[in-house]
Amino acid sequence: MHRIRVRVVADALDANDTIARANRADFDRAGVRVVNLMSAPGAGKTTLLERALPALGGLRAGVLEGDVEGSIDADRIAALHVPVAQLNTGAGFGGECHLDANMVRSALPELPLDTLDLLIVENVGNLVCPAEFRIGEDARAMVCSVAEGEDKPLKYPLMFRACELVVVNKVDLVDVLGFDLERLLENVAAVNPGAEVLTLSARTGAGVERFARWLAGTVARAGAAA
Amino acid sequence: MHRIRVRVVADALDANDTIARANRADFDRAGVRVVNLMSAPGAGKTTLLERALPALGGLRAGVLEGDVEGSIDADRIAALHVPVAQLNTGAGFGGECHLDANMVRSALPELPLDTLDLLIVENVGNLVCPAEFRIGEDARAMVCSVAEGEDKPLKYPLMFRACELVVVNKVDLVDVLGFDLERLLENVAAVNPGAEVLTLSARTGAGVERFARWLAGTVARAGAAA
Repeated sequence: MHRIRVRVVADALDANDTIARANRADFDRAGVRVVNLMSAPGAGKTTLLERALPALGGLRAGVLEGDVEGSIDADRIAALHVPVAQLNTGAGFGGECHLDANMVRSALPELPLDTLDLLIVENVGNLVCPAEFRIGEDARAMVCSVAEGEDKPLKYPLMFRACELVVVNKVDLVDVLGFDLERLLENVAAVNPGAEVLTLSARTGAGVERFARWLAGTVARAGAAA
Repeated sequence: MHRIRVRVVADALDANDTIARANRADFDRAGVRVVNLMSAPGAGKTTLLERALPALGGLRAGVLEGDVEGSIDADRIAALHVPVAQLNTGAGFGGECHLDANMVRSALPELPLDTLDLLIVENVGNLVCPAEFRIGEDARAMVCSVAEGEDKPLKYPLMFRACELVVVNKVDLVDVLGFDLERLLENVAAVNPGAEVLTLSARTGAGVERFARWLAGTVARAGAAA
């Protein structure tokens, strides 16, 4: 039974890569750069976007919201007058715990790609499977909340390794939690020595401008490389 | 492609139910009651167990730790001199984001079931897929941290519906976060009106004795029904 299951998964991942390349070709044609933003549930991805999107200067950004159900996050982003589409994995995709390239592809007609410089795909809250599926993105970023504990890079290394950027969020709670920020940063470095790390608080806004600059830099770098 | 994928998933779930029933028969023979404990990453399952296990009175408890990688949590539980086994989904199970009945079955020889009254299975940190796989348990409980936000029951309803008990953890952070506890409780009730809810702080220990009583009650109830 195991051999059969492994084969099916391998086939599915190959199909995913094919569709991810097709997405990427469409993104390139539209001149839009794409960031795949991942985290555990409740790490603060949407709050971070609410803070960072108005700080992007002249950059035209849109958001694709991935959730199992509902449109809570898309409604929050829409309130900023940012183009947004909601992609529910519970509707037609079996309640999947992650976005894959095919799901993202199905949602692209809902977004005005030609008018955007940057598309942020907010993945389903999950520290495991989203890291396994490329969606055609230029960069992968994750949010890790200090409320989750210092050990998460060691317990979910694939996610921490998959990302170019690790945002350490909720640093306003470091003192009240007695959180060992140095140990978290050491654990991130042990798993992914090349990762860029930003510490910030999306709730207070402290440090969010550095995330906004990273987003703008991703657009600039990808544009220069194209 | 979708039809094929749906069929494979259905087959896998049927096989899971068959193995879950076999696990359950083994648990019944050994006279051990089993709780499947689930949450998002970093919600505080292990800290809660560290606090609750010494408060179980004469109850003999063991723990099966589920993680993608490593034995950090099992090491923490072993320090309490509680029988514990570590089950890694990354070793032979494809890095799965949840435990299923077959994985649990593979670990049972590592635990002294005949000497236990209660086995707590700490699932992989994930608010989606663990809810879809029965493992032969008597009861399902989840931990939801206030640091994750008030909206999680609405975004991950399957998990909140699957559980008899919802533990709201980290209530010591309610004030500092400006967290709306009433709204969280309303959202839990909207998704699962029958759920028992305990608010506590595993970090400070406040309220943990009620979770310990719930565990003991699960053993008593299951014993009376057997």
